[in-house]
Formats: sequence, structure tokens, C-alpha cells
Amino acid sequence: MALPQALENYRKQYRKIKIFQDISSVLHWDSEVMMPVEGREYRSSQIAAVAELTHEWMTDKSFLEQIQSAKLSVKDLPESERPMWNRELEILMEEKEKADKLPSEFVADFAKLTNLAHAEWAEAKKEKNFKLFSKRLEELVNLSKKQADYFGYTTEPYDALLDSYEKGAKANQIQSLFSDLKNSLIPIVSKAPHFESPFKNPISIAKQTKFCNRLPAILGLTTKESRLDISNHPFSTSLGKGDKRITTRYSESDPLSSIFGVLHETGHSLYESGLSKMPDWPNPLTEYLSLGIHESQSRLWENQVGRSLPFWEFMYPILLNDFEMSEKELPFQQLYQYINSTEKSKIRVEADQVTYNLHIILRFEIERDLINGKIQVNELPEIWNSKMKESFGMTIENDAEGVLQDIHWSMGAFGYFPTYTLGNIFSAQFYKKFTEEYPNSHNKFSANGDFSDLLNWLRKNIHSKGKILKIENLVQEATGESANAKYLISYLEEKVKEVSISN
Amino acid sequence: MALPQALENYRKQYRKIKIFQDISSVLHWDSEVMMPVEGREYRSSQIAAVAELTHEWMTDKSFLEQIQSAKLSVKDLPESERPMWNRELEILMEEKEKADKLPSEFVADFAKLTNLAHAEWAEAKKEKNFKLFSKRLEELVNLSKKQADYFGYTTEPYDALLDSYEKGAKANQIQSLFSDLKNSLIPIVSKAPHFESPFKNPISIAKQTKFCNRLPAILGLTTKESRLDISNHPFSTSLGKGDKRITTRYSESDPLSSIFGVLHETGHSLYESGLSKMPDWPNPLTEYLSLGIHESQSRLWENQVGRSLPFWEFMYPILLNDFEMSEKELPFQQLYQYINSTEKSKIRVEADQVTYNLHIILRFEIERDLINGKIQVNELPEIWNSKMKESFGMTIENDAEGVLQDIHWSMGAFGYFPTYTLGNIFSAQFYKKFTEEYPNSHNKFSANGDFSDLLNWLRKNIHSKGKILKIENLVQEATGESANAKYLISYLEEKVKEVSISN
Repeated sequence: MALPQALENYRKQYRKIKIFQDISSVLHWDSEVMMPVEGREYRSSQIAAVAELTHEWMTDKSFLEQIQSAKLSVKDLPESERPMWNRELEILMEEKEKADKLPSEFVADFAKLTNLAHAEWAEAKKEKNFKLFSKRLEELVNLSKKQADYFGYTTEPYDALLDSYEKGAKANQIQSLFSDLKNSLIPIVSKAPHFESPFKNPISIAKQTKFCNRLPAILGLTTKESRLDISNHPFSTSLGKGDKRITTRYSESDPLSSIFGVLHETGHSLYESGLSKMPDWPNPLTEYLSLGIHESQSRLWENQVGRSLPFWEFMYPILLNDFEMSEKELPFQQLYQYINSTEKSKIRVEADQVTYNLHIILRFEIERDLINGKIQVNELPEIWNSKMKESFGMTIENDAEGVLQDIHWSMGAFGYFPTYTLGNIFSAQFYKKFTEEYPNSHNKFSANGDFSDLLNWLRKNIHSKGKILKIENLVQEATGESANAKYLISYLEEKVKEVSISN
Repeated sequence: MALPQALENYRKQYRKIKIFQDISSVLHWDSEVMMPVEGREYRSSQIAAVAELTHEWMTDKSFLEQIQSAKLSVKDLPESERPMWNRELEILMEEKEKADKLPSEFVADFAKLTNLAHAEWAEAKKEKNFKLFSKRLEELVNLSKKQADYFGYTTEPYDALLDSYEKGAKANQIQSLFSDLKNSLIPIVSKAPHFESPFKNPISIAKQTKFCNRLPAILGLTTKESRLDISNHPFSTSLGKGDKRITTRYSESDPLSSIFGVLHETGHSLYESGLSKMPDWPNPLTEYLSLGIHESQSRLWENQVGRSLPFWEFMYPILLNDFEMSEKELPFQQLYQYINSTEKSKIRVEADQVTYNLHIILRFEIERDLINGKIQVNELPEIWNSKMKESFGMTIENDAEGVLQDIHWSMGAFGYFPTYTLGNIFSAQFYKKFTEEYPNSHNKFSANGDFSDLLNWLRKNIHSKGKILKIENLVQEATGESANAKYLISYLEEKVKEVSISN
């Protein structure tokens, strides 16, 4: 049956907006990976022009009218098809209303401020001096509070910002989830063993590239629909159907950095690839559900798979071959222990899977108080440093290794950090459920490098759901219970036990 | 002094259109160089969406009104500034009127037809069977005749098509230019010596890449504003200010293929780079003047510079080093002769600089008669083959090495071919004038690889002129006389003499 005209019309306009948003992704990817340095200024104006255009279309009265006509047309469809259409139009209206709530001068001010702030933050970090950035950060915090007011909230301003990254999430619930996690993590960290790197000599980038190039296809992401390149910071992006891009960075002294970069970004791109395979792509239901769910997909392949024994049983001979090393030079046990080594560090992006979430919880607690007005910008370094002492027992020597280390606040991205730990929590819960349903899958991993059971499970339970379900319902339907940190805790406990015993 | 508001407004709208045209160049470049194969379909819809949008803006009534207001505002400017503004608005109106002359259904039909034709041409070429393509080609010729009617002409339909690639060019004038050239070329070809390749063993792509990566910077195009990649067919494109992209392809058995690809494409990008440096970029005056002028820039660096003795005196030790060869393995004289070797061939893209223009003249004569209705599509193979016999004394065995070899007609690009030979004619004329003005520049080439005199001459006389002058005036101002094939002829005669003597 043909769709009612109003639904066709609305979908056509939606697709047009989506096509230009994806064009923007092409421009961004190229900026980070390919563009010569003198192209930066003009590229900014290209990206700004596309953003202006899509924002114009999104907030245009005629688009609202198209959506409203589409809503009315849903009743002309067979009853069975109505709920999905209603959900699709409801999600879009939520996003549209959120966009409409911000006056366009505010959007422009915010863009201008974050653009200025980026360079100033980088300079302050280089100079290891928070004071050089504190005034600008204050403006960003004030503008973010204003943003929270525009969006509106019931309990606390921070909820309004959190909602942009993790729809429906509330700071109170996250606080209780994170408290449990923190209490359990501290004893695990104290027991988790540290192992020295077995790589005594540099591994050439050519050798690492050879190995890294194999990884996406082994997990299920082929070169027909993706490519792997180099950038300053690893990332993954979707440029549209059949075109996922991942990047990593190479360190000759630490080959795990590039490998785990690729595993992580492949996880993100497998999710996007699954979303693109949903029927009627693109529409508002075929987009990623939340940053936490996105991160669960990258973490699952990076940690639950990428740091597991079956994975390395399969990859080890391939690694030896590509790195041109003998078993004697790189004994399996030393490699595997190093992959699962724990070490307290001051820097989040260098943290291992055991300590990582403590870094996130610290940031969540601070930024929540900041946005809710309980602490002020000038108190940040002191609060940061005392919390580092409390959680890690570490003394921060300067702001660059402390409060200035992350880019997020300079981008005005308050409420983003918790999604990293939510991703870790979800990933452990999803993976546990998968292994219950496929108890023999590990044999296929180690014997044949066959990860299709896992990919199919994720496609079925997560990827093909897009935005059809709310986050809590997705977790419930996939795992039979609500989001819960206990699977992450038991995963880490078992991991620590496993590598300690093998010592 | 601030510009009158109407001029500001018009320029703003022009820039917006230009920004999106350049975004389309990013999408095209990425398609050819980076994109995974499954991205093709969605990328087509991205490119089509941008084309639709810019065409809409360009032909929009409100843009016409902006241009008209701008025209009226020119009188408010100081008298000295008026001529440039009038020229700018005149050029734009010419282009706009040309776009307006084609009904949008015609544009859509043409796009659809060429899209179909591309695959069918490729198939017919593969099958070496013109009949598989002749019906579609007939449609393309008919549509192109219709296009000529829409554009309008005074003498013959072919002029209307030619004008899109080489503004103001007339088939009659080209005919007389090409006749002189053809008459002179035939005896040169008969005397031009052929030399065997001195590369007896394959040269790895890594070694070739090392050498090729040096070339753009030596000519004056640095990695700050450009990058070099690989594609099926070498090309050059501008993605905007400070961002020029060039590509080449590598053959292990013929390392000259990649080297001359890079030299050629660098020439194109140096022109675009110069245009981007014009004041008030972008505006209609800062665009390339014609395809013939564009080609003159690539040919000049490829042939007049790239096949010259001073160039190779400088590059030879670098080549030996990068290719890891000794003087004994690759004697200078053998290399230099091979670089300037002549051989009659059936395929245009494999032709050397001496025989190349005969290929073009053949195509010009045929397509002119075709569009003017003097010959029919079904006669093409016979006419092609007899002309190949006449010009080259060669017998065509099948359509793939004959009439089907080039892509242009399947793209509906009638009138494009002559610009290649115009480019060769211009390049020799420009280079001759340059050497008269800088008689000692060759010493700087060979001693230091310093090509700045030449680049500065081109910047001053060609690049910085954009579309300010008409083609004939540009040639006149730069060289002191009108376009003339005699410099190309004497360049080739001297070259043949030089390499014959050194034998």
C-alpha cells in the first residue's frame, strides 16, 4: 500500500535534512583526517553554512506543518502500522521542540563562545594554568545554565543538559547507580594487578597498520562499507548508508593504543552500520538511541571481546606474524596480562578498564554541582585535586594533568561524561546476557575468529531497534532487567581474579 | 569605503552558492579517492541534493533581483572601481542566462540520460561493440543539438556547445588554428624518434610515491595547501581556499605515468591556488577563465617544464636516490630520451606530446560534423577508422581501441575535446614569452630546482587575471600577440631535433 501523501512529504523533507547533516559529517571527517592545514578557515565556513541551512529547515514553520499533516494522516493507515508512525513523529517533535526552545541568537552566541574557548583551553592546558581559562569557563557555565533554563527541568538544571545526550536520564538515578559502582570499584582497584609492557622494542607503524587493518573485518565491518585512517584522536563517524569511517593513532612504543582504538571505533561503526540496515532508513527511528548506548557498543568490542582470552587465542598467532615476533619474544601470558593490566593514572584517556569509571564519576559529581550552582568555577582546581586524592590517592601537580585535561567543558558539553560510564554498565549487562544465550560462542571466537553470533545478537537486540524503544525499555527487553551496575562489577572482579591467578 | 548594501547582499548570496559548489567538490573528491564501494548510492543522492539546491539558488528570481540591484549600485562607487564591478556582474549574468535558458525538465532529462549512458558506454567498450552504444549515443547527440538550440548560435550549432567550455570560441577559428597545426605536425611526427624504456625492472610503488610526493612542492604547491592521493584516473580539484587536491596512478612497469600525472595535475592546482589568492575571493572574477586556459597550465608544467633538460638535470640525482638505482642502471641520456620519446598509438590518453594533438583534431572534426548534422551516429566507426588511417596510418582493429575509447561523448560533453589542444597551443606560447622575459631562468631550474620565476610570471599574467579579461585579451596581454600554433610547432620541432641529436 502506498503511503498517504502527507507522510511521503514529511519523510522527503526529513531525508533532505538528514542528507545535509551527513554531508556535514563528510566535511568533518575530511577536516580531521585529510585536509591540508590552510583549508581550515574555509572549511569552517562550509560547515557553518550547512549547519545554518539544516537548522533553518528543521525549525521552519513549513516543516512543522508537514509534521502536523503527517500526524493527522496516521489514522488513514492500518491499525498495526500506527504505533511506529506515532513513535517516529513523537521523537521528531521532541527533538524539534528542543531545537525550537533555543533562540537563534543564543545558538549563535554559544557557537561563537565555544569556538573562542577551544583555543583558550588549549593554550591554558599548554601553560598548565587554569586561571587563563577560568573566566571563559565561567561564561560557558553561565550560558549552559541559561540553556538548561530554556530547555526546562523539574528537579535540577543538570537534568536538562544530561537529557541532550541520554534522553530521559536523571542525575538522581545516575548518582545512585554510580555510588554503588564507586563503592565496589575501590576495593577492586586495590586488588587489580599491574603488569609491565612486554614490548621492549618499538613496533613499526607499518607492522601495526597491517594488524589493525585486519580487525574491523574480523569483527564484521568490511572495507566494502568502511575505511580505517589516522587522526589525532581516534573517532568513528557515519557518512551515510554503506559508508562508515573509523580512525586510530599509532604509537611505536605502545602498540595496544592503536589496536584498542580500532576495536573501540569498530564497535561504534558496527552500531551505525546496523542502524543503516533498518527498514525505511533514514527516518527518526533509525538514528542512534543515546550516547550511552553508542558507547556500550564500542566498549563491548573493546573490553568484553577485545580483552578476552578467546579473542587473543585467535589473534595471537596473527599478531606474532604481523609484528614479526617469536613466541619467546612475546609470550602469550605476558601479552594477555599486559592487555588486562591496571594502573592508577591521572589522565582519563590513558586509564584502563578498571579505573576508568572512577575518572568519570569524579567529573559527573563536579559538573553536576557546577551546573546546579553548588560550586563555583574558581573552586574547580581545588575540588578536582581533593577528589583525585580521595578516589586514587594521587597528588595532582598541575592543572594540565588535573582539571584542564579534558576538552568537553570547553565545548560547553556538560552532561556528556556520564554517558561513558553508562556505556560501560550497559556493555557488561548486554554481554552477560549474550553469553547466557550463546554459552558456546567463545569456542567459535577462539577457534575461527567467528564473532557472528555476537554481532547478530547485537543487531537483533540493539542495532535494529534504533529509537523505537526508550533506553530503559531497550535494556529491559534485551536483558530482562533494568540497567544495573552489578554486571560491570562482576565482570571486573572476575577479570582481576583471572589475570591475578595466571600470574 | 564600505560597499553599497546591494553589492554586499549580492556577493553574500554568490558566496553561499560557491560554498555549496565547493562542498560538492569535497563529495566528488572523496567519492573518487576515499569512499568505500557501498557508499556510492547514498553519495549520489548527496551530490544530487547539493546540485539541486545550488541550481535553485542560481536560477531563483530573488537572486536575479539582487544582481539587478547590485548593477544599479555600481554608479554609487568611485569611477575607477566601476569597470571591474560591471565586468563581474556581466560575467555572472552571462552564466545565469545560460543556466536559465535550459528548462529544468531538460536538465533533468540530460542528467538521467548521461547517467544511463555511462554504464552502457562502459559495457560497449568492454564488449568492443559500438552497436551496443549507438542508439543511446544518438539520443545524446539529439539532446545536445537541442541544447545548442536552447543556447542559440549565429553560425553553427557546434559553436553553442563549444562556448560552454571555451567562452567565445568559434569552430571556424579553431578549424583554421588546427589545420595549420595538423599540417605542421605530420612531418614532425614522421621525424620524431622512438626510444625504448630504460626501466627494465619494475619500480615499486613505494619508491615512486617517495619521488612523486616531492614534485608539487618543488613546483610551488606545498602540503600546507594541497595533498596528493591515488585514483583510477589522475585529476585535480579545488575544495576551496587553501585546499587543492591532486591525484595520480601508479604503474610498476612505467614510473613515468605517475610522475607526469603529478606534474600535470600540479599545474592545474597551481592555477586554482593562484585564483584563490585574488582579492575578494570568491567572486565571479576569481574563477578559472576557460578549460583551454586551465589545460595550458597543466601542459606547461607537464611538457615545457617536465620534459625539459634543466628540470631533469635537477631531478635526476633525486630520482636515482628515490628509485635506489645507479647512474649505470639508469643513464641520464636514456632517461631523458625516453621522457621525450614519440610513438604513434591508437589511444589518446597514452599518446606522447608530439602525436597527442592529432588525436584531438580527429575528434574535433568528427564531433563538429556530428552536431552540425553533416554525419550520423551510425557512420562514426567508419569515419573514425578512416581518419586514423589518414592521420596515423594505423588500422583500428575494434571499437574499443577506436571510437569507443573516450568517455566524453557518453557524458554529453561535445565541444570539450578542442580545449586540450588549445591548452597545448597556449602553453607553448606562454612559455616562450616567459623564457624571453627571463632568459636565465633555466639555470635556476637546473641548479636549484627553483621555479619561482616561472610561477610568479604565471601568477602575474594568468592566475591573478581570473575572468577579468576575455580569453583573446588575456593571451594578447600576456604574450603580445593573439593565440597562435606556431610556438607549439617550433617547440615540438626543437624538441625532436634535440633528442635526435643526443641519440
